Amino acid sequence: MLIVGELINTSRQIIMESVQRRNVEYIHDIAKRQVEAGADYLDVNCSTMLDNEPEALRWLIENIQEATSAPLCIDTPDPVAMEVGLSLVRNGQPLVNSTTGEEERYKAILPLVVKYGAKIVGLCMDEQGTPETAEDRLRVALNLVKKLTEAGVAVGDIYLDPVLTPVSTGDKAGLEVLTAIRLIRQECPGVHLICGLSNVSYGLPNRKVLNRVFLIQTMTMGMDAYILDPLDKTLMGYLYASQALLAQDPFCANYLGAYRKGLYQC
Amino acid sequence: MLIVGELINTSRQIIMESVQRRNVEYIHDIAKRQVEAGADYLDVNCSTMLDNEPEALRWLIENIQEATSAPLCIDTPDPVAMEVGLSLVRNGQPLVNSTTGEEERYKAILPLVVKYGAKIVGLCMDEQGTPETAEDRLRVALNLVKKLTEAGVAVGDIYLDPVLTPVSTGDKAGLEVLTAIRLIRQECPGVHLICGLSNVSYGLPNRKVLNRVFLIQTMTMGMDAYILDPLDKTLMGYLYASQALLAQDPFCANYLGAYRKGLYQC
Repeated sequence: MLIVGELINTSRQIIMESVQRRNVEYIHDIAKRQVEAGADYLDVNCSTMLDNEPEALRWLIENIQEATSAPLCIDTPDPVAMEVGLSLVRNGQPLVNSTTGEEERYKAILPLVVKYGAKIVGLCMDEQGTPETAEDRLRVALNLVKKLTEAGVAVGDIYLDPVLTPVSTGDKAGLEVLTAIRLIRQECPGVHLICGLSNVSYGLPNRKVLNRVFLIQTMTMGMDAYILDPLDKTLMGYLYASQALLAQDPFCANYLGAYRKGLYQC
Repeated sequence: MLIVGELINTSRQIIMESVQRRNVEYIHDIAKRQVEAGADYLDVNCSTMLDNEPEALRWLIENIQEATSAPLCIDTPDPVAMEVGLSLVRNGQPLVNSTTGEEERYKAILPLVVKYGAKIVGLCMDEQGTPETAEDRLRVALNLVKKLTEAGVAVGDIYLDPVLTPVSTGDKAGLEVLTAIRLIRQECPGVHLICGLSNVSYGLPNRKVLNRVFLIQTMTMGMDAYILDPLDKTLMGYLYASQALLAQDPFCANYLGAYRKGLYQC
């Protein structure tokens, strides 16, 4: 299981303000707290800062790395900002977030993945747009894995994101993703599967419940990496409970540890 | 999805006292409330009353049927009590709970299933004892389905229980059940899969969280019937959320209805 802490993102007002005011203390704190809560990687996203994304990314990365030694997930669609980010990473193997199967984007990102020996998030969408069915997702997945491995990327460094769409806009939106996970697991042994959870619940009340349920459902089908809020104790509690029941937690040690830390509050 | 309300069970002190004191009002109330909360069937179990189980069962069934028209799940290992119970059922198709693959128990229960045209819960265990692996469970499942269908029981009237064992006594206890569900779904199309959830969490803290997670995990693998407490609003909330994400709830109607009824409290 790989947990990517999602909180350092300038689409969140508190992060935007921290960047604008150069609030080093808050960035140190939010970086440390995510790692202490279980994040293996920290996502860094300032793509809402259209005017000076590379500069903001540099400031964030330098300050995060003063506070923690966690490896970073550089989250931007812009290849220029991506290279600035990758060139600054000091700890471990960076995670490039992301490419798609779209030819132009793939061609811009691949050289950076190779140059920096990075892990790569591949979104299962291409020129045909947002996928609807499990088969749409599998088609892009197979294509991405073939191209990436032929370019020398290790299969274990590939993190496929099946692309979640809201169940409020289509009854089958959740089920198609679950089926896609099963198919990709069958057809591409060795790759990892990753997602953020919140898209699936868009437009419905009580989104946190749906997000938790989808965490458990996707884990049951074989997803093994998440971009999430590790400070959400309830979500993390459900993750540990799910691991215990999936034989991913010898002697329920993490589950019991989480219980002792007070992660089960509801 | 078939929900069997589990609360009328003399292993619960309040039910034991209600039977002993002939508290008709409480039995009426608990029967009605379970149905209002979403139970399709009501389980009736007074097998802790060793001295007078048939008499207690008669009193319970007569009073439950005064309060609701829900069909009943007669829950006893004793064939004599089972026949008393089945002979009293007035509404719908009774559910016999349960047989196993054990020859003696099966032979005593089968004639009652046929005589009363009942649905039947078949526990996936036999003379070899409590199953450990998914394959142990599949072996008994195949044997039970073969024997029952040859005896004229419709495949859609068979509810196989994979037999949950505590994850506290074996790391793979949950995963083996999930794998068994997948195998049984593949090998026995048309049968239903049922369980009570609480065994899986025995011996661990915060059992409700594990039970909820296992509800979601087993639904993801294809389980479609549960013996549970329908008055547990959180559990029912997770069930509806899970259905919405599994394309079992057109337009998220049940999920939204549950939200309006205040089922999401945490």
